[in-house]
Amino acid sequence: MSRLNRFYCPDLPAKAGAFVEFTGDEAHHMITVLRMRAGQSVTLFDGKGRSTEAKIVVAGRKAAQMELTAAPSVSPPPAFKLTMAIAPMKADFDELLVRLAELGVSDAVPVMTEYGEVNFKKREAAKFSGRLEKLAVRAAKQSGNNHLISVADQIDLDRLGANVIVCDTEGERQPLHALAQKAGKSATVLIGPEGGFSESERAMFRERRYTMASLPGGVLRAATAAMVAASIMLANKSL
Amino acid sequence: MSRLNRFYCPDLPAKAGAFVEFTGDEAHHMITVLRMRAGQSVTLFDGKGRSTEAKIVVAGRKAAQMELTAAPSVSPPPAFKLTMAIAPMKADFDELLVRLAELGVSDAVPVMTEYGEVNFKKREAAKFSGRLEKLAVRAAKQSGNNHLISVADQIDLDRLGANVIVCDTEGERQPLHALAQKAGKSATVLIGPEGGFSESERAMFRERRYTMASLPGGVLRAATAAMVAASIMLANKSL
Repeated sequence: MSRLNRFYCPDLPAKAGAFVEFTGDEAHHMITVLRMRAGQSVTLFDGKGRSTEAKIVVAGRKAAQMELTAAPSVSPPPAFKLTMAIAPMKADFDELLVRLAELGVSDAVPVMTEYGEVNFKKREAAKFSGRLEKLAVRAAKQSGNNHLISVADQIDLDRLGANVIVCDTEGERQPLHALAQKAGKSATVLIGPEGGFSESERAMFRERRYTMASLPGGVLRAATAAMVAASIMLANKSL
Repeated sequence: MSRLNRFYCPDLPAKAGAFVEFTGDEAHHMITVLRMRAGQSVTLFDGKGRSTEAKIVVAGRKAAQMELTAAPSVSPPPAFKLTMAIAPMKADFDELLVRLAELGVSDAVPVMTEYGEVNFKKREAAKFSGRLEKLAVRAAKQSGNNHLISVADQIDLDRLGANVIVCDTEGERQPLHALAQKAGKSATVLIGPEGGFSESERAMFRERRYTMASLPGGVLRAATAAMVAASIMLANKSL
């Protein structure tokens, strides 16, 4: 149960004895929020699978220095790569992203849809993805996952590739649970917006021969549907 | 897609042509929030499986009257009865309860645990369960489920019965997904508090031969774990 506090260090050195300095967000979290002091140990991870232990040597007001006490080890990437394509919702998207990251989702792709609540222009998208990267880091610190969830810029729905599993509320569909068992080493699951997909979007799914899936339960809000779908996919692939 | 607005009417009459009056919360939701007027149609449900259509005949400032346009029909209870026993968390419990209800969880049982964040005395529990009942109604209105999730008063952990599946983070466990497939027509799944179970609680689980289960993903917050566990159980039973 006594897990060391985790800090994100994208340029983690390769050798024990190397020094790392934090300023900005991670220094603030370490010194001001957690009130950590020189002599205490932490875990550093680079978000690409490498992690190691380090000792705080300087805990100043605006910066912290750590010394690596061991060479980084490498966590293997997840055996199953799950991409969740989601029409972002106004209220719950940040929270959803953190939960998906905890769960071990590899990629999140925000998509623009006809009835979507949040559709960005390019310039806004840059701000948006900056914020989402911070959320991805927060989730990795909390969950112990050494691979950061990758969050793409919001793209048009028709830019998704082939082999997409679409969770829809109408039409002929197979239970996602049955589809999960047949999936190979990766899958992309698309969750629609609160307002549902449009008829022209559904026509595109048919044309592209996307696989149509159903979820358990009643009428699920989009954020609930995304969590449920990711849980079902990852549970079936983690056996 | 054009679903009628749903209203909770615990004492739903049995015959077409009968009248119903709302005051209080449901009247407020109908008239003030949704601005519905006489002549419009709604769905009424009693939370115990019965539902029907009704027409608004009076939409006053503080009360509304409706006339049933058909006799209530009965939705069968869910084929699989899932009870989620959860140590309530400070921040996310209300939201979690609504999501579990959307998903079709039958019962939620808040439990008191040694490291739990929210442990009520009896008097507080009454207030707590009143609030939770409102959340259950909100979820049923939104999700289209005609059976209200039943939310019990918070009980001591050792008052749970036999045959509990415990989601724990340590020790020998089977993936919940595999256990779900073996479950019969009902199951009780226990999710621990953010701080985990204590050693004496774990000893009780062993003594009672509770089944120990693991969830996919990294370190999940308790609210995430509860959603993930319910999704896995219900997906595997909805085939």
